[in-house]
Amino acid sequence: MIEQYIKDQQLNLNSILIDRLNQLNIPDDFKQAVFYSIEAGGKRLRPILMMVTYEAFKNNTDKIVDPAIALEMIHTYSLIHDDLPAMDDDDFRRGQATLHRRFDEATAILVGDGLLTYAFNVVSTSSQLEAEEKIYTIQQLSQSAGYEGMIAGQHLDLKAEDRQLEETELNDIHQLKTGAIIRAAIKIGAYLGGATPPQIEALDEFGKYLGLVFQIQDDILDVEGDIAVIGKPVGSDEERNKSTYPQILGLDEAMKIKEKYMGLAKEKYGESGIDQPLLLELLDVFGNRHS
Amino acid sequence: MIEQYIKDQQLNLNSILIDRLNQLNIPDDFKQAVFYSIEAGGKRLRPILMMVTYEAFKNNTDKIVDPAIALEMIHTYSLIHDDLPAMDDDDFRRGQATLHRRFDEATAILVGDGLLTYAFNVVSTSSQLEAEEKIYTIQQLSQSAGYEGMIAGQHLDLKAEDRQLEETELNDIHQLKTGAIIRAAIKIGAYLGGATPPQIEALDEFGKYLGLVFQIQDDILDVEGDIAVIGKPVGSDEERNKSTYPQILGLDEAMKIKEKYMGLAKEKYGESGIDQPLLLELLDVFGNRHS
Repeated sequence: MIEQYIKDQQLNLNSILIDRLNQLNIPDDFKQAVFYSIEAGGKRLRPILMMVTYEAFKNNTDKIVDPAIALEMIHTYSLIHDDLPAMDDDDFRRGQATLHRRFDEATAILVGDGLLTYAFNVVSTSSQLEAEEKIYTIQQLSQSAGYEGMIAGQHLDLKAEDRQLEETELNDIHQLKTGAIIRAAIKIGAYLGGATPPQIEALDEFGKYLGLVFQIQDDILDVEGDIAVIGKPVGSDEERNKSTYPQILGLDEAMKIKEKYMGLAKEKYGESGIDQPLLLELLDVFGNRHS
Repeated sequence: MIEQYIKDQQLNLNSILIDRLNQLNIPDDFKQAVFYSIEAGGKRLRPILMMVTYEAFKNNTDKIVDPAIALEMIHTYSLIHDDLPAMDDDDFRRGQATLHRRFDEATAILVGDGLLTYAFNVVSTSSQLEAEEKIYTIQQLSQSAGYEGMIAGQHLDLKAEDRQLEETELNDIHQLKTGAIIRAAIKIGAYLGGATPPQIEALDEFGKYLGLVFQIQDDILDVEGDIAVIGKPVGSDEERNKSTYPQILGLDEAMKIKEKYMGLAKEKYGESGIDQPLLLELLDVFGNRHS
């Protein structure tokens, strides 16, 4: 059931994203670069997580669409900037050239800057949200994507290359780099749906463990993917001397920790008192995905 | 009088900016880079313009401080990213090393991303603004700094290198690259002050001409500064093969056009019906500044 939901929402979100970007009055050559970054695909898991949380409370998607596409714009901007030569220096993403390789670095910097800026424009001009709802959404997005969230995470991640990390350090980096945005997605979904403050708190904790599960599985895939393809456990993280959970803990222990966090996430889901099986299925997708 | 006002507000804004950034809970080495970008100075003309406009309507600065420092953060981010090697490739700004030269490119990209994001956080969490005031401010900032404003301007500016532009093309680029933000500064100041829609419209037109005056004077200074220093009119714009007003129109004609726009700005000021001589003095500062 979650698979069909994900497929449907991916199509839905892609069409809304394209529609929004088409409304922009910008030079054609630049518009192509903006579209390239969005059409490069992506699983849209963050906005889908936001929508699933929202739908635990409401039977429609009225209020959640604009925050969801804003979140995906912020996520896309972060990938574009992370791929730049000065950062992770990646030439490919999802099997196609990264934006700065397909166009050029200046374009990639500007497209990223623009997506981040446009995200706040989409929320602030939304016809579906009340003023207070816009403000809550903007607070959460700007906090989680900002200096004390994703940006600190990327900074620490870059600094941590070539250095062996402890498990707690690795947790800290990932909670900032990917966890903060995942938690914001859930909190925005819950708030806009009309959750009570204790529910938001429980779901926020759910999101904390979900984020860790997501990252550990990412690291596991990096090892396993390469074992399958080239027969030895050398992944791109290892090439770049990035610390990963399997490398610090061993693969078996990393899988155990992942299971532990999945259990804790389920506990927090229980505490929230909501009835949204799709959210648990999504946890399962995050923890057991193969790509 | 405006000189003293500018000096006072520069000190005031600097201290508020530092105070806000000090509240950030981020790694020390990264904080240093954030502070470097803000402490590198700058005339703070954009936030001052916003404040002067606001003070045409109100006898305090309560509501305008947070939008003003948010605007300066956005302006600072834009300079940091414009200076990057992939963009204008500048090693120095205001006599000191640019951020990516003093630190590194990754840090400069991240500090810029963070300032842009933090600007929206500052406005959305402001204790001084009503919900609708926050939203108006965020709409104006995200629109003027976004794809249809500053970012389009920077894109067109980069594309225009090595090509001779018409005066209208040059106007278009500057209206996007610097004009949009200047107009947003004025509109936010007027709106938060309580201006009527016709007043906001007249002041927006005032801002349009003020922006052009600012840019033409920038180009004139680029030529004159170099005449004074090295005895021939080769400025950094010319080195980079950027079209400028003096180059397209000749220096005399550029000065005449600037005077024309100053006159049109004064007309629009008159139409707004406000009594704020500081705003006219600021126009004079923008048009006749020596640095």
